[in-house]
Amino acid sequence: MNLADKFHGRNVLITGGLGFLGSNLAIKLVQYGANVTLLDSLIPQFGGNYFNISPVRQQVRINISDMRDPNSLDVLVQGQDYIFNLAGQVSHGDSMRDPQLDLGVNCVSTMNLVEACRKFNPEVRMLYTSTRQVYGRPQSLPVTEDHPTVPIDVNGINKLAAEYYHLLYHTTYGVRSTVLRLTNTFGPRQQIRSNRQGFCGIFIRLALEGKKISLFGGGTQVRDFNYVDDVVQALLVGITTDACMGRFYNLGSHKAYSLVQFVEILQKHCTFEIESMPFPDDKRIIDIGDYYGDFSRFSTATGWNPEIDLEEGIVRSLEFFRQHREVYWK
Amino acid sequence: MNLADKFHGRNVLITGGLGFLGSNLAIKLVQYGANVTLLDSLIPQFGGNYFNISPVRQQVRINISDMRDPNSLDVLVQGQDYIFNLAGQVSHGDSMRDPQLDLGVNCVSTMNLVEACRKFNPEVRMLYTSTRQVYGRPQSLPVTEDHPTVPIDVNGINKLAAEYYHLLYHTTYGVRSTVLRLTNTFGPRQQIRSNRQGFCGIFIRLALEGKKISLFGGGTQVRDFNYVDDVVQALLVGITTDACMGRFYNLGSHKAYSLVQFVEILQKHCTFEIESMPFPDDKRIIDIGDYYGDFSRFSTATGWNPEIDLEEGIVRSLEFFRQHREVYWK
Repeated sequence: MNLADKFHGRNVLITGGLGFLGSNLAIKLVQYGANVTLLDSLIPQFGGNYFNISPVRQQVRINISDMRDPNSLDVLVQGQDYIFNLAGQVSHGDSMRDPQLDLGVNCVSTMNLVEACRKFNPEVRMLYTSTRQVYGRPQSLPVTEDHPTVPIDVNGINKLAAEYYHLLYHTTYGVRSTVLRLTNTFGPRQQIRSNRQGFCGIFIRLALEGKKISLFGGGTQVRDFNYVDDVVQALLVGITTDACMGRFYNLGSHKAYSLVQFVEILQKHCTFEIESMPFPDDKRIIDIGDYYGDFSRFSTATGWNPEIDLEEGIVRSLEFFRQHREVYWK
Repeated sequence: MNLADKFHGRNVLITGGLGFLGSNLAIKLVQYGANVTLLDSLIPQFGGNYFNISPVRQQVRINISDMRDPNSLDVLVQGQDYIFNLAGQVSHGDSMRDPQLDLGVNCVSTMNLVEACRKFNPEVRMLYTSTRQVYGRPQSLPVTEDHPTVPIDVNGINKLAAEYYHLLYHTTYGVRSTVLRLTNTFGPRQQIRSNRQGFCGIFIRLALEGKKISLFGGGTQVRDFNYVDDVVQALLVGITTDACMGRFYNLGSHKAYSLVQFVEILQKHCTFEIESMPFPDDKRIIDIGDYYGDFSRFSTATGWNPEIDLEEGIVRSLEFFRQHREVYWK
C-alpha cells in the first residue's frame, strides 16, 4: 500500500497545524485525500498563520485553541486515526528568556494531548516532533540515538520530557507514538521574521533583503539540514510504520555544512555581505558547537532518505519567499 | 570545619519543610544553629504537617505558599545561603492518576525556584532531592549514575526534568546545585496514612495495627533502604561539598533486601499476617522490578556512608509511630 492509500479518507489531526511543518504536512495530506483538522493557538510570536495553508484552506478544518487547556483536546482527539503533534515552542533563546512559557507549551500541552488520547482515543497513532537539542553538546559525531541526553537549554529539557510522555503512554497504555528528533529544518512557510525557528530562516530573509549576515565565532560550526519536504515525508512514513511505534529516531542529511558554507550557497543566489563577530553571551551559553546526526536507524526502519540537497532546498526557499515577501516579512 | 560550623548562623530555606525529609532536616539544622525557613504548601494529600516540626517550632520560620506561584519564591530565596529543594509530589501511582498535578508540583515549581535564584540570589547553593525512579526498570544492578534514564511513570519523567533544570542553571548561570537520587527512605515523620510515600510507611502502619500485609507478586522484589537520619546527613554533606555542585548522585545502602525480608524484620517486632497476591494492573505497569543503587560516587565525593541498618531503622520508626499514633494515623 502506498502512502497516499494509507491516508486517503483517514482522519488526521495536526497540532501546530498552521505553522511551518504543520502547514506543509497538511497540504500533502489533503493531496492524499485525508480529512485534516488543524489545531493551532496562533500565539503571535510563534510560526502559525492562515496564509500558510492557503492552498488547502477550503479543504481542511481549522480549530483555534491552546493545548495548555485540556478541554478542546478531549474533544478534538476523538475519531482521529493519526495525530501529528507538531505544536510547540522551538526557540532555544526564548526558552531561556521565558522558561515557564516553554514548559507550558511543550510539557503541559503534550501531557494534555496524551492524556486526552488515553481517555478518548487509545487506538490512535501519534508522531511527536522533538529536536536534536535534547542531546546538548555532542560528545561524539555523528550523534546517534544512543548519545547521552544532556540538554543545555530549557527547550531541550522540556522537549525531552515531552518525548518521554509520548513513549510512556505507548509503553504503559498502548497509545502508540513515535518520536522524531529533527535537526535544522528549512523551507517554504517557515517563520523568517525572527531567528525563533533557527538561523536558516533569518539568514534567508537577510539574504533576500541584501542585508549583512553576522556569523558568530567565525561561522565554522557544522550542522545538518533538512528541507521541509523531506521532513514531511519522514513524518508520513514514520507514523505509518509499525516498527517505529514506541521508539525515537534522528533525522539528518547525507552531508553536513558549516554555517559559512550555508551562507556561501546563499551568496550564489543573493547579494549581501558577511561579517564575523564574537558570540553574544546569551547565545554562547546555549551553543552546542558542531552537530550532525546519524539517521541510519530511521532509514533502516522506514526506507526514508532525504532527497533534496541543501542548495536545491535553498533555491526553492528563496523562490517561495520572493513571491510571498509581503506575508513573511511583517 | 565540621558540619555544625558550616550551618551555624547561616540562612537556610527548605522547600517541603513541613514534610518527612524537610522536618527531619530542619530539626538537625536548628541544632546546628542555622536560621531556618520552612516553605510548604500543605497540600492535604502530601506529607506536610505542623506536628513534624514540633521540637523546633519556635525556632523556625514557617511560610505557607505554593511554589507553582512564583511570587513568594522571588521573595523567599533572597538572603538564603542554602536552599534544600525537597518539595514535590513523590507518589508514582498518583503521578499516573493526576499527571498534570505531578507536572505542576515537580516541574513548574522547580522552574520557579531556579528562576527566582537566578534573578534574586545567584550566589546560593541548592540541593535537589530526586528519585531512583528516573532510571526506570534497571538494565543492570547495582544501578550507577551512568545507567540510562528510561522512566516508566510520569513522576520519573518530571523529576528528571526538574534535575535538568537545577543542573542547567548551574552550568549556564552558575547558580550552584547538586542532585541526589534517593531510594526508599523511611523513618519518623514519614506520611504513613497511605502508600503515597512508598511501601515502607504503609507497611509500618499495618504492622503496628496488626493488619494483614499484602505482598504483590510474592514480595521477591529487591530494594535498598535508607533510614531518614542517614539521608539528612547526605543532604548536609552534599550541599556543603564543592565537588558535588553541578553533579548528580545516587544514595543507597550497604545491603539490599527483598520485600519479604523487610516484612519479616517487621514481624520480629509486631504481630501481623502476610499474604501474597498478584500485582494489581495499575501497580504492575509502573513496577520497576529489582532495584539497588551504587552510591560509591557520592561516598567518594563526600565520605558519606549510611550508618543505620534496616532493622535498627525499623525499630526506631516503630518506636516513634507508637508514640505518635494519634497524629500519623488520621
